[in-house]
Amino acid sequence: MAEPGREARREAVGQLGTALRELVDAAVRTEVPLDDLAGVAVAARELAARLRADARDLHDVASVDDPEIGERWYSPVYGPGNPVAPPLVATDSPDGTARGRVTLGKAHEGPPGLVHGGVVATLLDHVLARAVRAAGRGGLTATLTVTYRRPVPLGVPLVVTAAVAGTDGRRTTAGARLAAEADPGRVLAEADGLFVALRPDRAAEVFAPTGRAIGAWTARGGDG
Amino acid sequence: MAEPGREARREAVGQLGTALRELVDAAVRTEVPLDDLAGVAVAARELAARLRADARDLHDVASVDDPEIGERWYSPVYGPGNPVAPPLVATDSPDGTARGRVTLGKAHEGPPGLVHGGVVATLLDHVLARAVRAAGRGGLTATLTVTYRRPVPLGVPLVVTAAVAGTDGRRTTAGARLAAEADPGRVLAEADGLFVALRPDRAAEVFAPTGRAIGAWTARGGDG
Repeated sequence: MAEPGREARREAVGQLGTALRELVDAAVRTEVPLDDLAGVAVAARELAARLRADARDLHDVASVDDPEIGERWYSPVYGPGNPVAPPLVATDSPDGTARGRVTLGKAHEGPPGLVHGGVVATLLDHVLARAVRAAGRGGLTATLTVTYRRPVPLGVPLVVTAAVAGTDGRRTTAGARLAAEADPGRVLAEADGLFVALRPDRAAEVFAPTGRAIGAWTARGGDG
Repeated sequence: MAEPGREARREAVGQLGTALRELVDAAVRTEVPLDDLAGVAVAARELAARLRADARDLHDVASVDDPEIGERWYSPVYGPGNPVAPPLVATDSPDGTARGRVTLGKAHEGPPGLVHGGVVATLLDHVLARAVRAAGRGGLTATLTVTYRRPVPLGVPLVVTAAVAGTDGRRTTAGARLAAEADPGRVLAEADGLFVALRPDRAAEVFAPTGRAIGAWTARGGDG
């Protein structure tokens, strides 16, 4: 468990993430006059400067994170603090399964009214990696094969599920599918993933810039 | 060409997008005290309310967009107006090739210091679709196979290239690769994609909620 100070910060980080997701959604849907667009841009830059008063560098791990177990408060998929994340709300089980729920808005649109194919791939990649990690297996994605069966609509609760299929040394395979929550038997997209755990010496090299011990992508965890 | 009024709006939309990308980047890197996080959240909600004074519904096409030719000012990959987009800066050619350049920051991080695997898939999916569209072929992604060869670093200019490989009726295949701009011969990730153009009657059904004629995903264009 994180210390109480970290829990309070996680809460505040999530609140800011939620507010910024609202702002992002408003920005990609707005038709207000040009003067208003310009005024909001100026105000947004002022807010950015306020947050930059104390900022991490590109390779620093966030104070709210625990890289040993792979918790990422700023994940672009499920991070409560990342306005880019929808966010997916995900759970997993030690039997090597994972499940996530998400509703996508205009910010993740591909063809008009539909979820972008890359976003679909990202959601599937994440639940695959989460299932692998839940099974006690580490690894980075080595191959990801996505089959798009039907258009995926915006604005509808979606469910993404994954399960580990097999293991062989540092290699783990898993399968995932995505469906509308209201019609879970009708698969909209599915994916197979192969995850390969980094050897300790290779992990030390890859994560050297962070200056931290990163356990989650070697022996135990994983995150796309 | 768009009318002059639309060009001016596109410029303003892009400026707001740039400002909000700065805010998103600052938010996912900040370590300022909790009071500041809370203060910025309140201010962000006020800005969102300002933009919501005139907002499109989930299926409305933006006034800056042209859905017939597939231009998307709010694409989550290359849209200048979408804070979720890195954005990728992409070009294409009628010979069925496409090329994009992008540098990813903390908002698109997977494992510490590395680009998220789903984001890599998204970039590859986009240049594949763009190459297909440039060749005069339409279609939604039907299958996408990504092979991750090496970790993809944050903060480094990346180049993504794609080329159409073959066509068969409504089906088009294409291949893509991603490398660091400084070392273009060393492939970090690659992908194969199959795109299938919607039949006109199916396109009419899929895009009915937009109330618009959408040409780019049937005969001529495409966007992941």
